[in-house]
Amino acid sequence: MLNKPRLLTPGPTPLPEQIRLVMAQDMIHHRKAAFKHVMAELQERLQMLFGTSQPVMSLACSGTGVMTAAVTNLFAPGEKVIVVDGGKFGERWAKIAKGHGLEIVTLSVAWGTAVTTAEVEAALDAHPDARGLFVQNSETSTGVLHPVRELAAITRTRDLLFVVDGISSVGISPCPMDAWGIDCLVTGSQKGLMLPPGLGLIALSERAWNKAETVPPACFYFNLLSERANVQKNQTLFTTPVSLIIGLNESLKMFMDAGLETVYRKQWALTMLARTAVKEMGLELLAPDHFTWGLTSVRLPEGVDGGKLLEIAADRFGVIMAGGQDHLKGRAVRIGHMGWVDWADLAAGLHALAESFRACGGYIGSRDYLEKGLQAYHEALLTYDGTV
Amino acid sequence: MLNKPRLLTPGPTPLPEQIRLVMAQDMIHHRKAAFKHVMAELQERLQMLFGTSQPVMSLACSGTGVMTAAVTNLFAPGEKVIVVDGGKFGERWAKIAKGHGLEIVTLSVAWGTAVTTAEVEAALDAHPDARGLFVQNSETSTGVLHPVRELAAITRTRDLLFVVDGISSVGISPCPMDAWGIDCLVTGSQKGLMLPPGLGLIALSERAWNKAETVPPACFYFNLLSERANVQKNQTLFTTPVSLIIGLNESLKMFMDAGLETVYRKQWALTMLARTAVKEMGLELLAPDHFTWGLTSVRLPEGVDGGKLLEIAADRFGVIMAGGQDHLKGRAVRIGHMGWVDWADLAAGLHALAESFRACGGYIGSRDYLEKGLQAYHEALLTYDGTV
Repeated sequence: MLNKPRLLTPGPTPLPEQIRLVMAQDMIHHRKAAFKHVMAELQERLQMLFGTSQPVMSLACSGTGVMTAAVTNLFAPGEKVIVVDGGKFGERWAKIAKGHGLEIVTLSVAWGTAVTTAEVEAALDAHPDARGLFVQNSETSTGVLHPVRELAAITRTRDLLFVVDGISSVGISPCPMDAWGIDCLVTGSQKGLMLPPGLGLIALSERAWNKAETVPPACFYFNLLSERANVQKNQTLFTTPVSLIIGLNESLKMFMDAGLETVYRKQWALTMLARTAVKEMGLELLAPDHFTWGLTSVRLPEGVDGGKLLEIAADRFGVIMAGGQDHLKGRAVRIGHMGWVDWADLAAGLHALAESFRACGGYIGSRDYLEKGLQAYHEALLTYDGTV
Repeated sequence: MLNKPRLLTPGPTPLPEQIRLVMAQDMIHHRKAAFKHVMAELQERLQMLFGTSQPVMSLACSGTGVMTAAVTNLFAPGEKVIVVDGGKFGERWAKIAKGHGLEIVTLSVAWGTAVTTAEVEAALDAHPDARGLFVQNSETSTGVLHPVRELAAITRTRDLLFVVDGISSVGISPCPMDAWGIDCLVTGSQKGLMLPPGLGLIALSERAWNKAETVPPACFYFNLLSERANVQKNQTLFTTPVSLIIGLNESLKMFMDAGLETVYRKQWALTMLARTAVKEMGLELLAPDHFTWGLTSVRLPEGVDGGKLLEIAADRFGVIMAGGQDHLKGRAVRIGHMGWVDWADLAAGLHALAESFRACGGYIGSRDYLEKGLQAYHEALLTYDGTV
């Protein structure tokens, strides 16, 4: 009774009551007119969210499912692809591609650092036979934002597909697919979109569709050509998670009512709040230069046990955050500020972070990190200019 | 305002309010202790539902997803399998197996008819090199119940895996996996389990696990060996549809509170209600002899348009039923009585069927089909002896 639980992880995220209640309605049938009407409305909203005139397909799967769909529908075994690997999800692109029998060129980037256009250009020059470039827009394991817009520009003049994992960026920071020139963009329901997990979203550019038409089918469940034919009938190939679809339609209505620009402005301002407060605390940001707008990662100093810190934050303050992954396990904290999270939730999370850090023996001199963070938030709301 | 909507399709089904409200709670994180506790409780309940001591795995996908998982994890391309094809979902086994590069022997059965053990035995004798036998327990497209118990017995003395689609039978009629000797049983959330679509469930026998360990991985997303390792930690391999898992745990609590036997008794009695009423109406049952307990299929006489009939049932009576599929499109009606459906809902559905049939020019002489159906229901509740 002392604390309300506050979910501040980089997905899943808290959900607006109005979405939860819409999803709590009794079931309707996925092949009847009422549902087709929802699908038609949803399709228009999804195209606005993705910034594309191409169909956006909803699959019953997690984010890894749509990543699998992208790899297996766009490339035939034996083709060469370049994978930017700067964290757990870059690694996942590589694993999926390898499992599908692709030849992989890995472009490794230190965790916390973004890939540069020069590095990618060099890799493309060294491997002119590469047919695909895979990257995360936001690498959820580190909080790094890769320069997708610039990378897209490089790939436009070459004969390869640019495939982007937007799982923790779509609905969080701008990533307009057609305007930037992305060939395949995927995302999941449980990050920026304020929904439970269980729905994967994917869209292809025209040239990606042309390529997909030449690739032999690999996994029966992930068949994007058949999914596209179904979207045109306001349907899905297989039985769809009806309640999540209805929830997504409501979520995107909230997005459209507010305007995408307002959502991005908010996410930018929350990021300024988190980063300013963390710096004021004297803690080290894991992604110093290129950072995503939906989570902030903090590297812990030696001697502070990240696992214990998270436990204290949860037990004493009701704040649920995520730790580091793989070699950063116990060495980092990731505080999520995506989905249905506002400035007051995040301020609570930052206070829990500071107090838990102190309780683990860490030193924080600042007594006004919250005030400074909140000032940065207000200022960012006013000065946000829409650039990434 | 005249009619309440009544969803009487063979999935998705109406949902109990208590499940919908449990799922409407705010999100919790899938890697934290509170969720692991749910997963542990759920695992015990799932094993009871499946009648197995082996782990039951929950995947973020539709029923076709777990069918794909079964095929790709248990068989290597090039292996020979026998597929019983007596409807749209038998056909689906064949398509998935073919897509995976298996050599298929199709055992075709007329729609509405169950396969016989003699037919299967002959196929097994003719193809001693077959490594798998695929069947539906309940073929949702026709309402036929295949003799899974007897087929399992045949396969026990042979070196092949018996793979059963229980999508419209698990939680509807008995199908105890270990006791009968089923090597792989799959189901989905949106049929007997009173949940929205979006979750697939799958369990393997010990000998199926032994086989799975020898099969090279095919589709990155469907990796049952890794899923099993995660179940042991009360986790899932990838992000799981948290709200559906919480709903499933609540659903199975309802099953366990009532007792599985009570659920089967109810489903048997509902089936007697539907079949008695349909026969009293003078209509033809599509599956005359071997029928599933979750839906009843009616073959329409020439001159009655099934599409129009469904429209009238929906518009004038608020009753949503399903039509025939493929060559039975417009020629059959499938009335679902699975999930959160009781005798009064079904009686309403049967009345809507009769009146819509009349409105389409069909003749029904009986004026007491409902009373006779309901008497059959009450009697069946009392005389049900647990045999399939």
